[in-house]
Amino acid sequence: MSTGRLEAFSDAVIAVAATLLVLNLVVPAPGSQHSLAHDLGHQWPAYAAYAISFLTIGIIWINHHVMIGRLREPDHSIMILNLLLLMTIGVLPFATNLLSTYLTKSHGQQLAAAVYAGAFLLMATAFGTLNWHILMHRSDLLRAKLSREERRRILVTSASGLGPYVIATGLAFVSSYASLAICGALALFYALPVASGLGRGAPVG
Amino acid sequence: MSTGRLEAFSDAVIAVAATLLVLNLVVPAPGSQHSLAHDLGHQWPAYAAYAISFLTIGIIWINHHVMIGRLREPDHSIMILNLLLLMTIGVLPFATNLLSTYLTKSHGQQLAAAVYAGAFLLMATAFGTLNWHILMHRSDLLRAKLSREERRRILVTSASGLGPYVIATGLAFVSSYASLAICGALALFYALPVASGLGRGAPVG
Amino acid sequence: MSTGRLEAFSDAVIAVAATLLVLNLVVPAPGSQHSLAHDLGHQWPAYAAYAISFLTIGIIWINHHVMIGRLREPDHSIMILNLLLLMTIGVLPFATNLLSTYLTKSHGQQLAAAVYAGAFLLMATAFGTLNWHILMHRSDLLRAKLSREERRRILVTSASGLGPYVIATGLAFVSSYASLAICGALALFYALPVASGLGRGAPVG
Amino acid sequence: MSTGRLEAFSDAVIAVAATLLVLNLVVPAPGSQHSLAHDLGHQWPAYAAYAISFLTIGIIWINHHVMIGRLREPDHSIMILNLLLLMTIGVLPFATNLLSTYLTKSHGQQLAAAVYAGAFLLMATAFGTLNWHILMHRSDLLRAKLSREERRRILVTSASGLGPYVIATGLAFVSSYASLAICGALALFYALPVASGLGRGAPVG
Repeated sequence: MSTGRLEAFSDAVIAVAATLLVLNLVVPAPGSQHSLAHDLGHQWPAYAAYAISFLTIGIIWINHHVMIGRLREPDHSIMILNLLLLMTIGVLPFATNLLSTYLTKSHGQQLAAAVYAGAFLLMATAFGTLNWHILMHRSDLLRAKLSREERRRILVTSASGLGPYVIATGLAFVSSYASLAICGALALFYALPVASGLGRGAPVG
Repeated sequence: MSTGRLEAFSDAVIAVAATLLVLNLVVPAPGSQHSLAHDLGHQWPAYAAYAISFLTIGIIWINHHVMIGRLREPDHSIMILNLLLLMTIGVLPFATNLLSTYLTKSHGQQLAAAVYAGAFLLMATAFGTLNWHILMHRSDLLRAKLSREERRRILVTSASGLGPYVIATGLAFVSSYASLAICGALALFYALPVASGLGRGAPVG
Repeated sequence: MSTGRLEAFSDAVIAVAATLLVLNLVVPAPGSQHSLAHDLGHQWPAYAAYAISFLTIGIIWINHHVMIGRLREPDHSIMILNLLLLMTIGVLPFATNLLSTYLTKSHGQQLAAAVYAGAFLLMATAFGTLNWHILMHRSDLLRAKLSREERRRILVTSASGLGPYVIATGLAFVSSYASLAICGALALFYALPVASGLGRGAPVG
Repeated sequence: MSTGRLEAFSDAVIAVAATLLVLNLVVPAPGSQHSLAHDLGHQWPAYAAYAISFLTIGIIWINHHVMIGRLREPDHSIMILNLLLLMTIGVLPFATNLLSTYLTKSHGQQLAAAVYAGAFLLMATAFGTLNWHILMHRSDLLRAKLSREERRRILVTSASGLGPYVIATGLAFVSSYASLAICGALALFYALPVASGLGRGAPVG
């Protein structure tokens, strides 16, 4: 198994997960008593969640290539940990749908926001675990020799996204909007040019 | 990150978005009081929207390769602008569904047509922005050196799709059918052999 | 644009169309008054249509590569005709769903079978048109020089699937089961080893 | 047709099938009389089935590459048997959905578990058949010459997953939970490092 095939399969899963997000944008039923403009406007949480999820999945895709690009070839353990990472990415359309449905509801709002931020936290954890496994346990499979110092530095940068997602998950039980705002801010931060030097090694957003 | 990987991921998102359009073709419920022929015929807006959206997505795919084919390698800013472009393409199955549902309804018809044409306008704008960024800001990343004159000419051709989409979006509030006709005519125009010389540089929208 | 990219995009659309067929297999609602075995058994048209459509799409994929494999590079006209072919493939999950829903209904059964066979006919026509355009109009783009005789022979073999689909479409108005049987027999025929010499040039049906 | 194209198409079908699994995770309707936490918790069979199916599909993907990687080039018979294998993989989102829906229901529970395990059995059978055909009938197409002894050993290892799936399918009629546990244990077993030497030749189950 070459890294090329590993990347091609991962690309496909990540691309399909991102594109399936559109299924969360629901066409209002024609028989509504409100105007279509009202009904569409009412769905703003779905648009916000679509944008944040798509951007976050896109950034994880970029970072995935940086991570796998360091490898000469994968072994069985790397392939399995990568599958687990893809499994957490594959679940994001569900978490996005949950948030879109409940963000403006009086009931379930906070749990939905916690599941949404928690799904990103899970993905970032799976990403960090694979990165840590590659850099610390299978550094013999790396293309270029990296000093222990460099590998540690990459991991610290990579783990920097975990903290904000922990906060966003906990904060959801206080304010679902604040939690969503953190998820959005993280996606934007990693998309910004300023993060590109740093971001190249950062794990999810 | 090579342009090959950027293209492979973009191809996958664009291909899935095009193929998801079929989910907008709804099988009439068997218990209907009308004949199946009547119920299927009644869905003609869905067929028209499917054909126009599929063709437009296909043409943007062709033009995307022309645009990325000029690059030696992408940088962070190009990858993020490309993600934003993919995000606008990913939204097209929703806009197509909205138009299919509301085109023949008395209520919401004009807004649905405006959202449909507006989604193409958004995509064309994202495409043009990325093309402009590559040609004007990151011309150092181009494979072949292009004079400022040549780059400007490509951008003008590329921007030529924006005008008709602006018109289609505005016109939707007067006549949703006229708006749809413009979107269809644009797709056909870029598909015609006559546009292939010109079209190679044109973004579609 | 290389044929490699054309194939990669076509592969993605064809693979997604084949995989979306599973959405036509509906899980019976738990509250049914019948046993699950009865409800699942009652859906046999959906299983038959899934198998026939998946196999037919798979064979068109094989033949697509044979067709594109003859090309040194595509031009604009080939790319647009290929898009039209992909558009007809993309519509198959809808036709499959329509047949699955109506095959055992007393009302709409024949039209549904005609649409199903007609969708294959449309696909075979789009395939034949592209093949004819390549071999007769753009033979300068072929990898290996083929005599007019050889090109004509390929086209005749390639067109041999059209006849049975015309018959299947017409026959649907007499017997939807007979129409479906022809579609199934064609898929099986092209899958058989005996058709592999012949089938390599045949369009699918 | 190169093995590269065969792998690319298979990758796409397998990746889409894995990603479509998320559609089985249903967002609880907002108007429920229970808390969202209760409604989400009630869906635990869907989460278990998602994880088991995703992991199993991922492992079959790994093993698919090992199998195809032995080939110098495919012939028509290999491509058709591969299509049949993909057809069985494509059906897994349906089997997963069926199990998710019925696992905790009093009615249909056992049949749903049998269909779920049976779908894996079908996939493993299709995998084993293709592997057997390649190794025993078309060994002239192998990259490296393997002795009859080595080929037989690979097939025995490869067939080792069939037994547990036969047991899981039969056991479903006694206990659907025990059946599901076997499916889960098999996925975990092949994912474990201990199975990687052995697992490289094992078909998934």
